[in-house]
Amino acid sequence: MNLKKFFYPKSICIAGASTKEKSIGYELLKTIKIYGFNGKVFPVNPKADEILGFKCFHSINDVDDIIDLAIVVVPKQFAEETVDQLLQKKVKSITLITAGFKEIGKAGEEAEKRILEKIKNEGARLVGPNCMGVINTLDEIKLNATFVAEKPEKGSTGFLSQSGALGAAVLNSLRETDIKFAHFISVGNKADVNENDILNFWQNDSNIQTMTFYLESFVDGKNFLLPFIKNEITKPTIILKAGKTKSGMKAASSHTGALSSKDKIVDALLKQFGIIRTDDLNELFNTAKGFENFTLPKGNKIAVVTNAGGPAILAVDALEKENLILAELSNETKNKLREIVHPEGSVENPIDLLPGGDAEIYKKVNEIILKDDNVDAVISIFVEPVMVEPFDVIESVYSINSEKPIYQVVMPLPEFWQKYRNSSQKKLPLFRNPEEPAKVISNILFHEKAKVKIQKNKSEYLNLINVKSNNEIYTDGYLTQEEIVELAKKYNLPIVRSEIVEANEIKNYTVDNFPLVIKGINKNVIHKSEMKAIKLDIKSKEELIQASEEIKNNFSLKGLDVENFLIQQYVKPKHELLIGGFFDNSFGPIIMFGSGGKYVEIYEDTSIKSCYSCEADIDALINETKIGKILKGIRGEKPSDIEVLKQIIKNTIRMFLENSSIKEFDINPLVLAEDDKYYIVDFRVKMK
Amino acid sequence: MNLKKFFYPKSICIAGASTKEKSIGYELLKTIKIYGFNGKVFPVNPKADEILGFKCFHSINDVDDIIDLAIVVVPKQFAEETVDQLLQKKVKSITLITAGFKEIGKAGEEAEKRILEKIKNEGARLVGPNCMGVINTLDEIKLNATFVAEKPEKGSTGFLSQSGALGAAVLNSLRETDIKFAHFISVGNKADVNENDILNFWQNDSNIQTMTFYLESFVDGKNFLLPFIKNEITKPTIILKAGKTKSGMKAASSHTGALSSKDKIVDALLKQFGIIRTDDLNELFNTAKGFENFTLPKGNKIAVVTNAGGPAILAVDALEKENLILAELSNETKNKLREIVHPEGSVENPIDLLPGGDAEIYKKVNEIILKDDNVDAVISIFVEPVMVEPFDVIESVYSINSEKPIYQVVMPLPEFWQKYRNSSQKKLPLFRNPEEPAKVISNILFHEKAKVKIQKNKSEYLNLINVKSNNEIYTDGYLTQEEIVELAKKYNLPIVRSEIVEANEIKNYTVDNFPLVIKGINKNVIHKSEMKAIKLDIKSKEELIQASEEIKNNFSLKGLDVENFLIQQYVKPKHELLIGGFFDNSFGPIIMFGSGGKYVEIYEDTSIKSCYSCEADIDALINETKIGKILKGIRGEKPSDIEVLKQIIKNTIRMFLENSSIKEFDINPLVLAEDDKYYIVDFRVKMK
Repeated sequence: MNLKKFFYPKSICIAGASTKEKSIGYELLKTIKIYGFNGKVFPVNPKADEILGFKCFHSINDVDDIIDLAIVVVPKQFAEETVDQLLQKKVKSITLITAGFKEIGKAGEEAEKRILEKIKNEGARLVGPNCMGVINTLDEIKLNATFVAEKPEKGSTGFLSQSGALGAAVLNSLRETDIKFAHFISVGNKADVNENDILNFWQNDSNIQTMTFYLESFVDGKNFLLPFIKNEITKPTIILKAGKTKSGMKAASSHTGALSSKDKIVDALLKQFGIIRTDDLNELFNTAKGFENFTLPKGNKIAVVTNAGGPAILAVDALEKENLILAELSNETKNKLREIVHPEGSVENPIDLLPGGDAEIYKKVNEIILKDDNVDAVISIFVEPVMVEPFDVIESVYSINSEKPIYQVVMPLPEFWQKYRNSSQKKLPLFRNPEEPAKVISNILFHEKAKVKIQKNKSEYLNLINVKSNNEIYTDGYLTQEEIVELAKKYNLPIVRSEIVEANEIKNYTVDNFPLVIKGINKNVIHKSEMKAIKLDIKSKEELIQASEEIKNNFSLKGLDVENFLIQQYVKPKHELLIGGFFDNSFGPIIMFGSGGKYVEIYEDTSIKSCYSCEADIDALINETKIGKILKGIRGEKPSDIEVLKQIIKNTIRMFLENSSIKEFDINPLVLAEDDKYYIVDFRVKMK
Repeated sequence: MNLKKFFYPKSICIAGASTKEKSIGYELLKTIKIYGFNGKVFPVNPKADEILGFKCFHSINDVDDIIDLAIVVVPKQFAEETVDQLLQKKVKSITLITAGFKEIGKAGEEAEKRILEKIKNEGARLVGPNCMGVINTLDEIKLNATFVAEKPEKGSTGFLSQSGALGAAVLNSLRETDIKFAHFISVGNKADVNENDILNFWQNDSNIQTMTFYLESFVDGKNFLLPFIKNEITKPTIILKAGKTKSGMKAASSHTGALSSKDKIVDALLKQFGIIRTDDLNELFNTAKGFENFTLPKGNKIAVVTNAGGPAILAVDALEKENLILAELSNETKNKLREIVHPEGSVENPIDLLPGGDAEIYKKVNEIILKDDNVDAVISIFVEPVMVEPFDVIESVYSINSEKPIYQVVMPLPEFWQKYRNSSQKKLPLFRNPEEPAKVISNILFHEKAKVKIQKNKSEYLNLINVKSNNEIYTDGYLTQEEIVELAKKYNLPIVRSEIVEANEIKNYTVDNFPLVIKGINKNVIHKSEMKAIKLDIKSKEELIQASEEIKNNFSLKGLDVENFLIQQYVKPKHELLIGGFFDNSFGPIIMFGSGGKYVEIYEDTSIKSCYSCEADIDALINETKIGKILKGIRGEKPSDIEVLKQIIKNTIRMFLENSSIKEFDINPLVLAEDDKYYIVDFRVKMK
């Protein structure tokens, strides 16, 4: 069902309105009143006839009008019956602010489930429980149904907060941070309405330009991503994801699993599909401001204007950190600048106007450099000196019309801010630290680039999403060596020739050609190197027998038997690589590539992507690793055949997508041998 | 000469005082007046008789009293003669605010040199030029001799800024950031007084508790570090170093050089000697506040108290990022908490008091957890809800007396701040973001740990500092193979057996034992792998001859001759390591250790330290690298003999310190062979 009434109600009912100051039921109503809701307000309280000038109803049933949106703030023991009454009244949009549900344990969880079932049965939608309400700043609505009595200014950001308190902290700070939004919603326990619903709703709401999310968890990561992959979500989406954890996947028997913490997966997949992830709230809203208030930079060549050296150096440090380029100004530009800039200043980027730089000089200088083809954006920094008024400088620079963005940093005396808020014409955002704009520019460029990639590869993505699983493998646990060989053959994966020999039969084994590798197998042993279960480069029958004895010995030292020996062709490795895959319960199938061998966990030279990876994603998967750079050939070395490698990766992805019964697989090492061919030396597949 | 008069003058002369509002000469005097300097003020202006109520002198000579400190703000064309007059008047402390010297080029540089020479001849000291003055907030002085007319509050931080503007930006923001300091000094071009002088001055000034620096360069890095290494500087020292650059050392012919950017050196050496380096100004002052206002945490086990989930999660994320530990509360503590904390809250760390948590609950909860032996420090977070007044919560928590620190984070409505500034008893610092205290705690623990290390190893450090250079090697350019062998022998460095054979003589070369390595040598070729100049594991004379032909061929393809062949013992590498050293012009001798081989620049698995490294530093040098972790033995592998490796590193350090004519050296690879012994396979030494 549509979520529109949550943000655009014509009438609201506050179930649990109160006459008691400082109670939520009172403060919420007061906030609604102060902000001036453009619709009907129906407070419900069994005893009161009037609260804060609103006529009060003794029960929901008494309300003699249609209720578009109900905000429920009753004590939790009355929550369920209140929802019942609302549903009876045919209310389809309910925000349950009341806490004390899933977050407090078993009893709360069950109550939450019951409520949700009722909601679903009636085709209604529920926001919360355990949330702090909703805001729409647009003139035709003007609804602040939270209990923070601030008057947020109109903007075009959508802001969803999983944490009510984080939302409250942002609302508390509005007068200092100048954050503006169109919609705010606190989703609390996300029993029904969650980030996936809101994402799709905002994409289709023309009042929303940029979507921002504070999340502690994804309800369903795969379905959060799918609309991005399908190019259905095109608005800039910016996420602060908290609750990072170092611990790897629980059932991390594979290298691939052990190397992938939940946070790494979130990081990699958001990045792959152009979703901006920020480090903190400040960056979250700065980035939204960057998208909404300025033209977008077309490239990464940045000019810095300043009246002081130090802050400019900090800005340049930040540009470098974000891989942005300090623009090389043309001679024509520098000549023009020389006519204006103080001779002791600098016409080289960063352009230093010295403390005497005033509104007129700032404006002219900015106009000149914006015309330089080598400049994509300007960061204009102003530290308030004694002799120049900051307000005039800021206003004159922001009065410039240009297709390129100017981001102004200002470091003034405190009095400046009130003057700017009261008197500025455009009230464009200002940055307080010289480091901030670089991050904003970098986030914007990242998003624009990813958008192009997704548009271009839409059909390739759709093909992958639509792969049907054949589910032909039904084994439990790990596939046997025979099954592995069969699978490798089916998906054209270059596994080395190998044979299994019973431990006692090794003496009778007829060898066809050397060199060989011998591995001891016991189904309880996963990491063979720890057991000293492997001997490489065996050149004769005698060596083979001797090696088998040593391996048996190593096993028996750990109280284990060798059940079988695996005899394999030996390939001398030039490089050891890893390809792995695993199924993440939230985000679905994931592919990993990187340095392989026995030190993978130490080197951590791996990259991950969703299995829904287009050609460009697979290129990135390889290039993001150090071994990927080495494979491309450095220091005069011949590059190895990356196309072959890419095909192997694609084949493993196809294998994984077509066999949804595979839980995880590990190819480690995939050897790039001296003959420049790839060989899979160890391949393990674990079933769900 | 002593710098005391710069901070503690009894009389000051303002040369260039002006009657013109908004001019520096006027604003500076106004600022001095507003702040209420506790001493005599002598403005000098050739035309005025009185400015801002001060009697004005027409020339410096007219001043009929002793001048402790002169602040010069005359136009630059009069700067030199003003200094002359001050020196004639026997003024020994001069702050030259006037700009237009070294920073504008040749002419300015020469004027600056002339002034400096005069200053030195008279035994005076000069701060600046191109700076913004000095502040002392202590009651007996009360000097704000800058042109930012703020009234900084008294504190115990020393703050030095190389950039005047950065200093001004900090001063502009004081009323919002609540930064407090004892001394502020802007050192500008650092013609005479620089960070090294101030560092030592502040160490010996009992009014200074913490020293903070904004630097864009080090005048003399080695002499900045030496007092730390000698344990002469014991006060917490916190640096924001701007002007990072990716570019490696200019003459980076060696791997070691190419891997060490100036910024990496700064980073590593500050870290080695317990100097805190911060990412931004906010962290700089937060850390100073942490040292000065709270007891120091004794360990890294942190409890978090909160009235809201979201901010606590952000705090926990930050703790994890800083390798701090979320304290495990004792059962006793949890039982006590259960009596107070709302049943739907949490008594597990982070302790959630829910929005109803008020001053009384906050105080009691904090008192209980401070008594838990598993807790070293508390982060107490308060997001202002409707029903609880933030001021009371903050005050009650900060009223607790405990040997353990509590850091409070508050996210209130803007009105709170003014109330806190006006009415708080202790006015202890508050943090605005849940992420901030973790960084502060981490910085403090880092400093305390390093301090212990330096105290403990003082004599070892002194021995290294006092190593005398013998300077026995006088070769230019690279040492020859013979010289290398001799050097290795002298310092007990395990170089492999090797012999040089003229290119034409290779056919007549008598081989004693295999396997061997053959390398083509041409003095213009540094990176042998790029030239395909090496063949490994040669097992017969025939292979040797064939290899030599191939190498000759590879050289001739690049238009080069093979001059000689180097025939070496072949050791089969288990691991390839790198030890390198180079002389940094600012910071002196540097040692590097890490993964070696031909991909060093890609893997970047190296660590650097000053050659003044005690045993613990060398342990860290190894442990900070991934290969170091591998050498220690992982996954059941036998650890290699780290003591032998450490001895080799120590020997190279001794070699480097005793031969100051060595510019850089590169041991790459140092091979850890299958026999678990170390072999130097390639050793290059470049002379100054």
